[in-house]
Amino acid sequence: MAEIDRMLEANQQWAKEFPGSKPVRPARKVAVVACMDARIPLFGVLGLEVGDAHVIRNAGGVITEDVIRSLTISQHALGTREIVLVHHTECGLQTTDDVSFADTVEQATGRRPPWAARAFTDVDQDVRESIRLIRESPYLLSHEVRGTVYDVTTGRLREVS
Amino acid sequence: MAEIDRMLEANQQWAKEFPGSKPVRPARKVAVVACMDARIPLFGVLGLEVGDAHVIRNAGGVITEDVIRSLTISQHALGTREIVLVHHTECGLQTTDDVSFADTVEQATGRRPPWAARAFTDVDQDVRESIRLIRESPYLLSHEVRGTVYDVTTGRLREVS
Repeated sequence: MAEIDRMLEANQQWAKEFPGSKPVRPARKVAVVACMDARIPLFGVLGLEVGDAHVIRNAGGVITEDVIRSLTISQHALGTREIVLVHHTECGLQTTDDVSFADTVEQATGRRPPWAARAFTDVDQDVRESIRLIRESPYLLSHEVRGTVYDVTTGRLREVS
Repeated sequence: MAEIDRMLEANQQWAKEFPGSKPVRPARKVAVVACMDARIPLFGVLGLEVGDAHVIRNAGGVITEDVIRSLTISQHALGTREIVLVHHTECGLQTTDDVSFADTVEQATGRRPPWAARAFTDVDQDVRESIRLIRESPYLLSHEVRGTVYDVTTGRLREVS
């Protein structure tokens, strides 16, 4: 069975237990920016309820133009005012570098991507760089941002100072 | 209390119940691309377990260069081969248009964003456009993609044909 068919089937159970509708504006006025990693169920990890927070995720949880677009909409159109970053240990982006990854894609597809993978080595440093990029954005209404690292072997979240 | 402090506190409970570590490669070899909307806890909605799937989310769940970057890493470095899109009813991006949103940001910050908000009117059409953009990407190893709309008032997921 295709994965989407399993998901559509599983969703029937969810719909039966559906807790009811919530407002579109996040109740806790916060947006979370996190890595796409499969081991981070953010609602559980952060204690979020349905309707609490916007959730923005990409490879690495890095700050790209698309993340700034999403945060700008989150703040200007939907009222959020805090930003929380969630990076994590054992990230796939720590096992490569931008040149090696572009080589891999080019060898497999015949096309070299014009964008960088955004690989990194030091996760704490990557969180600090993400905080810096958010603080520098001229489009946000609030630059209140703090960052964390999630340990995928213990489930513990640690703030990066 | 800042929202991050509430999250760090809630995480202590999560860490106590932590189900154990999982491999970095998604077990179900699937990547989900969804909207950042606060009302969509994807693990519950789709019946995902920790470690099953990559989760990529932005405003609208639209296909941007950053989403293609994330999907390319997901497939080339971490072995996923299917893509599932989750858009939803009552999206914030259906209540504005790109020019009005840029006006709003410029009036509030003095700076007009150089990127489009990616507002849309017809959610089914937006899913089809996202499917088209993924199929056209030359960097992916697999273009197996299907799309859905999540009804935020009932909890039901519907495939877009």
